[in-house]
Amino acid sequence: MSPSASAPTPTTPFGASADLPKPPGLTWRVQSREPVGYDVHIVRGLLDPANPTLARACGADGQNPTRCLVVVDDKVRTLYGERVRAYLDAWRVESFWKVLPGDEAAKELTSAVEVTEAMTAMGLLRRTEKVVAIGGGVVLDVAGFAASLYRRGVPYVRVPTTLLGQIDAGIGVKTGVNHGTHKNRLGTYYAPETALIDPEFLATVDPRHIVNGTAEIIKMALVKDRTLFELLEAVVAGAGPQSLTAGGAAATEVISRAIAGMLDELEPNLWEQVLERSVDYGHTFSPSLELRADPPLLHGEAVAADMAICVALAHHRGLLCADDTDRALRLMHDAGLPLSHPVFTTDLLAESLRDAVKHRDGLQRVPLTDGIGRVRFVNDLTHEELGRAREFVAQRAAALGAPEDGRVLAVAS
Amino acid sequence: MSPSASAPTPTTPFGASADLPKPPGLTWRVQSREPVGYDVHIVRGLLDPANPTLARACGADGQNPTRCLVVVDDKVRTLYGERVRAYLDAWRVESFWKVLPGDEAAKELTSAVEVTEAMTAMGLLRRTEKVVAIGGGVVLDVAGFAASLYRRGVPYVRVPTTLLGQIDAGIGVKTGVNHGTHKNRLGTYYAPETALIDPEFLATVDPRHIVNGTAEIIKMALVKDRTLFELLEAVVAGAGPQSLTAGGAAATEVISRAIAGMLDELEPNLWEQVLERSVDYGHTFSPSLELRADPPLLHGEAVAADMAICVALAHHRGLLCADDTDRALRLMHDAGLPLSHPVFTTDLLAESLRDAVKHRDGLQRVPLTDGIGRVRFVNDLTHEELGRAREFVAQRAAALGAPEDGRVLAVAS
Repeated sequence: MSPSASAPTPTTPFGASADLPKPPGLTWRVQSREPVGYDVHIVRGLLDPANPTLARACGADGQNPTRCLVVVDDKVRTLYGERVRAYLDAWRVESFWKVLPGDEAAKELTSAVEVTEAMTAMGLLRRTEKVVAIGGGVVLDVAGFAASLYRRGVPYVRVPTTLLGQIDAGIGVKTGVNHGTHKNRLGTYYAPETALIDPEFLATVDPRHIVNGTAEIIKMALVKDRTLFELLEAVVAGAGPQSLTAGGAAATEVISRAIAGMLDELEPNLWEQVLERSVDYGHTFSPSLELRADPPLLHGEAVAADMAICVALAHHRGLLCADDTDRALRLMHDAGLPLSHPVFTTDLLAESLRDAVKHRDGLQRVPLTDGIGRVRFVNDLTHEELGRAREFVAQRAAALGAPEDGRVLAVAS
Repeated sequence: MSPSASAPTPTTPFGASADLPKPPGLTWRVQSREPVGYDVHIVRGLLDPANPTLARACGADGQNPTRCLVVVDDKVRTLYGERVRAYLDAWRVESFWKVLPGDEAAKELTSAVEVTEAMTAMGLLRRTEKVVAIGGGVVLDVAGFAASLYRRGVPYVRVPTTLLGQIDAGIGVKTGVNHGTHKNRLGTYYAPETALIDPEFLATVDPRHIVNGTAEIIKMALVKDRTLFELLEAVVAGAGPQSLTAGGAAATEVISRAIAGMLDELEPNLWEQVLERSVDYGHTFSPSLELRADPPLLHGEAVAADMAICVALAHHRGLLCADDTDRALRLMHDAGLPLSHPVFTTDLLAESLRDAVKHRDGLQRVPLTDGIGRVRFVNDLTHEELGRAREFVAQRAAALGAPEDGRVLAVAS
């Protein structure tokens, strides 16, 4: 049904009405559907002037001059700023720039407002000139939020430069900022026009953050893609997770499969109306851990410790055979991710679960692997099961030689 | 097509793919449609505890306790605060309150943020507890904006208390705040769950604001509803526009037809993708007038002066016969609206038109009446036509005894 095909339905006709397309009444229902669509491309050499992809995303053809607002974090400006500017110059795109700090502290309303003020200052034409966000999750979330608010929405392009951004946060439609003590308290669902994934950016991501992104790839593998799981095993056993930055065929296939799986999960549920989400795997217990770990853990590291618990829970319920259970824990460990953490007491696990129930409208809705590559949601996890899973993970972690304190091992550059 | 029926389309298959619901690739297109729907009810006695409408909109049944956040302006709190509280108490709705100033200066980001902070303070449950905005345009726009941002959107209910709000601003999906020197610079399209229109609120609206709202009703009549036009003529010639506040059958029919017409225009174009909008009638030249008039004009007053120009333009193009031209100008004048204003020089009209072209993506797209009750869009208005229209309106205004200085006549209470 196209938006224009629907018509408000008068449910209580009132007065003479044959002369109006819709009769006057005392009650109407307005109904429509907003079409939303965006492209995701994996493209190497995005900043090579011979490559037209980014220029086209900016509406440039190299002949007619156009303009855009580039929003980057300071790290991206330092590493890639000159190349981005030279590229845009070559395509006759006049670029205006807004540089944000890339750290979580900058993910606040003030930053988003500053981005909209940069749009006002350049006089951004709302339908033809783009906002181009290049950077990590903070820049993408803040710039996307700003683009969604400026004159009720202007087109924007996402260029995630971190592994986590390229396979997860940078390819969806969520924008937002932290407010008060709350993460993502203010935000919108607002699709970019295009998300451009250039794996070459990964060459400048530090090793710990590559491992961090790997956790979310392992998540996708566990819940929906056994082939991806086996590919990851081969990559990790071979050149290690850092080889994901090297651009070989296996690395591209890993990233491609992770993106394909993520988009497949996101598309039917862009506005999160459905509360049973496979992509919540590893995200039931991890928020508490991420909040409490000291020294702090990265998001993917906390997710890994959560996934280890979930692997054990599935194993104890007969959903995951002994061999797959071992392989899942070993893959995370070999990738450099923590399996356990002293913060994860059974009581904290139970408390995290109660928090999740609140966010998931009254039910646990915990995704568990039903064999590697399939998911099942459960609503009846008990305190005793959590304790048993925790113990199981601790034993396996010890057997694998993981540090007992949940410390993240130094990753070789 | 339901959101869940679509699937990202891989346009460049990559690698082995038969094992994934969607093959990995180098390019994907994500497509969906967000379903949006809301109810608009005309309901008298909204604050009468015997009337369940508002309670139901708050998710209350009178048995099980629930909670809501009430957002009002100071005028509504003074006039109706105790009745709203008593009503909600009677339905076992625990009400938390956020009071905003109702003037345009309060329509800013800080106010919206304060509303979200009120949600945080009460621990608003995002899927079951409602935000209820009761007031004029400023409160509805600010509270709607806040509801759209808080945790990426929570349900809200709109209760417009002014005539303009009840037939125009309060029944659509636009939210927003002013920023810097720009009106509605930041905002969202975000539908309420329900808009409740109680004409009894109009009893406390001051007369000039009733006339102000009448201008937007005349607009709807001119562009799409000749019956409404004739009904308005009868009301204005009879007891005058202030009788719209008296709640008789004619008043209800006027309001009902104005709402029906407005919803009919909004529904197929909720996100304003289509730039030819009938509801922009009277909104081509009026923004400049609204900005410059001193003493200031209300929105509807500036719209009336714009409509008078448009009536003359249509007449000169043979789109509006002499009789209808006279009737249209007379109705506005008799309703207490200005027809002309010294700020409206031919040069300013031309400048306003150039501004409109910028906002309408390169074309004038000026709606003109094609007979009373029909609309036609034109793109070729000339400077000479504007001058002639201006002169024509000045003559007719003088003949009707309208003040030459565009001053708004004192309206009897």
